[in-house]
Amino acid sequence: MEVLSPAARHRDIPFMNPTDVIRTKRDGGTLSRETLEYFVRGHCRGDVTDPQMAAFQMAVLLRGMTFQETVDLTDVMTHSGSLISFADLPGPKVDKHSTGGVGDKVSLILAPMVAACGAFVPMLSGRGLGHTGGTLDKLESIPGFRTALAIEEFRSAVKEVGFAIASQSEELVPADRRMYALRDATATIESPPLIAGSILSKKRAEGIDALALDVTTGDGAFMRTERHAEDLAGLLARVGAALGLRVRAFLTMMDQPRGFAIGNWLEVREAVDCLKGLWIQDLMEVTLTLGGSLLHLSGVVHTLAEGRDRCREVISSGRAYETFLRGVKRQGGDVTFLETPEKYGTAQYREQVRAIRGGWVKGMSTRAIGELAVDIGAGRRRKEDVIDPRAGIIMEARIGDQVQRGGLLATVHAADGDAARMAVMKLQTYVTIGEAPIDPLPTIAGVVDPEGRLPATALD
Amino acid sequence: MEVLSPAARHRDIPFMNPTDVIRTKRDGGTLSRETLEYFVRGHCRGDVTDPQMAAFQMAVLLRGMTFQETVDLTDVMTHSGSLISFADLPGPKVDKHSTGGVGDKVSLILAPMVAACGAFVPMLSGRGLGHTGGTLDKLESIPGFRTALAIEEFRSAVKEVGFAIASQSEELVPADRRMYALRDATATIESPPLIAGSILSKKRAEGIDALALDVTTGDGAFMRTERHAEDLAGLLARVGAALGLRVRAFLTMMDQPRGFAIGNWLEVREAVDCLKGLWIQDLMEVTLTLGGSLLHLSGVVHTLAEGRDRCREVISSGRAYETFLRGVKRQGGDVTFLETPEKYGTAQYREQVRAIRGGWVKGMSTRAIGELAVDIGAGRRRKEDVIDPRAGIIMEARIGDQVQRGGLLATVHAADGDAARMAVMKLQTYVTIGEAPIDPLPTIAGVVDPEGRLPATALD
Repeated sequence: MEVLSPAARHRDIPFMNPTDVIRTKRDGGTLSRETLEYFVRGHCRGDVTDPQMAAFQMAVLLRGMTFQETVDLTDVMTHSGSLISFADLPGPKVDKHSTGGVGDKVSLILAPMVAACGAFVPMLSGRGLGHTGGTLDKLESIPGFRTALAIEEFRSAVKEVGFAIASQSEELVPADRRMYALRDATATIESPPLIAGSILSKKRAEGIDALALDVTTGDGAFMRTERHAEDLAGLLARVGAALGLRVRAFLTMMDQPRGFAIGNWLEVREAVDCLKGLWIQDLMEVTLTLGGSLLHLSGVVHTLAEGRDRCREVISSGRAYETFLRGVKRQGGDVTFLETPEKYGTAQYREQVRAIRGGWVKGMSTRAIGELAVDIGAGRRRKEDVIDPRAGIIMEARIGDQVQRGGLLATVHAADGDAARMAVMKLQTYVTIGEAPIDPLPTIAGVVDPEGRLPATALD
Repeated sequence: MEVLSPAARHRDIPFMNPTDVIRTKRDGGTLSRETLEYFVRGHCRGDVTDPQMAAFQMAVLLRGMTFQETVDLTDVMTHSGSLISFADLPGPKVDKHSTGGVGDKVSLILAPMVAACGAFVPMLSGRGLGHTGGTLDKLESIPGFRTALAIEEFRSAVKEVGFAIASQSEELVPADRRMYALRDATATIESPPLIAGSILSKKRAEGIDALALDVTTGDGAFMRTERHAEDLAGLLARVGAALGLRVRAFLTMMDQPRGFAIGNWLEVREAVDCLKGLWIQDLMEVTLTLGGSLLHLSGVVHTLAEGRDRCREVISSGRAYETFLRGVKRQGGDVTFLETPEKYGTAQYREQVRAIRGGWVKGMSTRAIGELAVDIGAGRRRKEDVIDPRAGIIMEARIGDQVQRGGLLATVHAADGDAARMAVMKLQTYVTIGEAPIDPLPTIAGVVDPEGRLPATALD
């Protein structure tokens, strides 16, 4: 452009206006760090409008970003607000992140478990999105639990308890909050550079040293194929490393719900059971691997196997559960409901889903199951929807299980009888039963670090 | 999707929500008429947000639309509001549309000229966009002229005078107004299906029978290459025909400003001069060809040549100019300023641009010249900017002209002396002077009808 726009003149950023930035990306061009900073900060200030950001994000989704653009975007987003510093804490600061799934309550178990091992876990988490649940929604099913903590309160909870799980405060990464708010409704979720920017900017703002990523794949994940998940895992690991984080990404299967419970209070109960020693194979395999990896990455132990052992110990000893109770109490939660779950009560309608034929469970429409849980009250379709904490689904069968005709496949918990019965009918079609035996699914399909995919032995 | 969203349930449109529509287009899918209707009408109602529409339009720009989708989109937009009916008028209803240029005042001359030939011209027009001027802004430089007419007032003006030029009223094509408002700022102007939808929905709502399109190409146009312009012309002609309009599209050159004047009042004055018989080659060639074509398409005459002759006659006889004066008066304009232009006064600063070397004018940065005119007050950068009607540029040389060192190339009219002198310096670089003689440029490069490009003889 030969001519300065008045907006550019005003801010002394020559030759730049929001429309030019969108047009450049739209036409497949590459944006400089300075340009991305201008655009992202402009959106925070309101100079770049929401429609402009939405059009930009669609252009990014369809045109992609170079690695350097993705690093720059992430860094610019990180610095759009305050950063937390934990320099005063006597131990490593670590966190995990999952790209989303159904029944995924790993964070609830992992945070107190890793904290009980001596690392600090300052976990800023999110709410449910589409068919996937959100850690904050789950915790808020505990009466009194507050997720909106000011930075200082969050810092002191992490310092005292070893972990805290809170919502992103106003001061942290405002760019992500504003950009992310547009993505679900505008079909711009599934863009690797935007996903990297969103996840890693928040994690860097937490002031952590090491990050374990749970990159889900399969029907219940946002990345449907392992190839896409591996690409995303590699991108996240490399961008994280470029920004100074020690990162390891695990490719995990989301072809069936993780654990048995889906729904906020139901998942909290299941997490408590696991913290008290219940072994649910897929759920605990992921939890121990991610937790062990964090201890390894941050130098608390020397190998992943040693990290896993350490995590197992704090569960066996009850220290992980005690840490969880202290953390819940610290954030205002009434722990008597955790200690005596019967006090909480259940949903009024509990309808059983039974197999219409005998055989082996060979598949589940996991995304549809997640959507169904939302529909019966366990999630939100719109921001203003109110979640029913008792609503949800308990899956009773897993892929590979043999079931009899009339055997129990799942139980639906809902406040509305019609909704519950409708859900039962749908669930019968979401669980596929075959005539031949089938092997159980693996839970973790691979490990990726900034240099690429690691051999399977890296999981040992 | 297996699950109805609450929004879809509410409206009894199963399996549809705005995000799904965006996602389908994002992934290269094809949308049905029903889906486009749901999305476009949803946007008018506010159920589809502006960011969603912006993301959708970016997806359309990058993924394209099939011919049928473009027809459906146009039709859905047309029916988003009221339609004007001119069934009671004793003659054909015609209009023209230009895809934009610099110094393009064809409409001001054409509308009264064609009306003087017995056709009716209900012209709903637009404002300046980027480097291109807008017919409404030009007319509003006439003291008292009102462009905001209610539908009935517009109808009666067309009926009495033979033409009216007004802004799109609230009732007509609200979908276009809302969609278009987003496109400039989100870099989604240059999408053929969106252009077709926007232009043709408005033209159909006018209740016309025939439409002549001026599809500009070259540096000062939105379509820079003739190939792009020809594709767009073909699309417009075919979509128009599919919707029942008689359409012909002319590919015209915008490698230099059209006529000499750029700027609102300066262009009105030039148009008045032409209506009074002044022959400005490129401007009048386009005006007579489009006007003649409208008389031909609507059956007033039998050939384009005959149509051109008829237009020439009403200019020679003064009937076109009289019709213009009646139309201006009908819309509240003070015609004494047209009759005695000196009364209007000029901009305070009139700075001359002189050739820094002798030779032949071989090129002009037409888009930059248009932007420069905006910068010195002839257009708006933001909606709230106030236009200075006297500001602008009079080009004194055309491509192919021989100029002496120190010869006059242009005159800048501005209210601010510094801005005027800055513009002079820029203009010197925007006009390229070569050492060798060069032929003048052709004005009309081709004709396209719904069946495709016609032979050059179609212009005879």
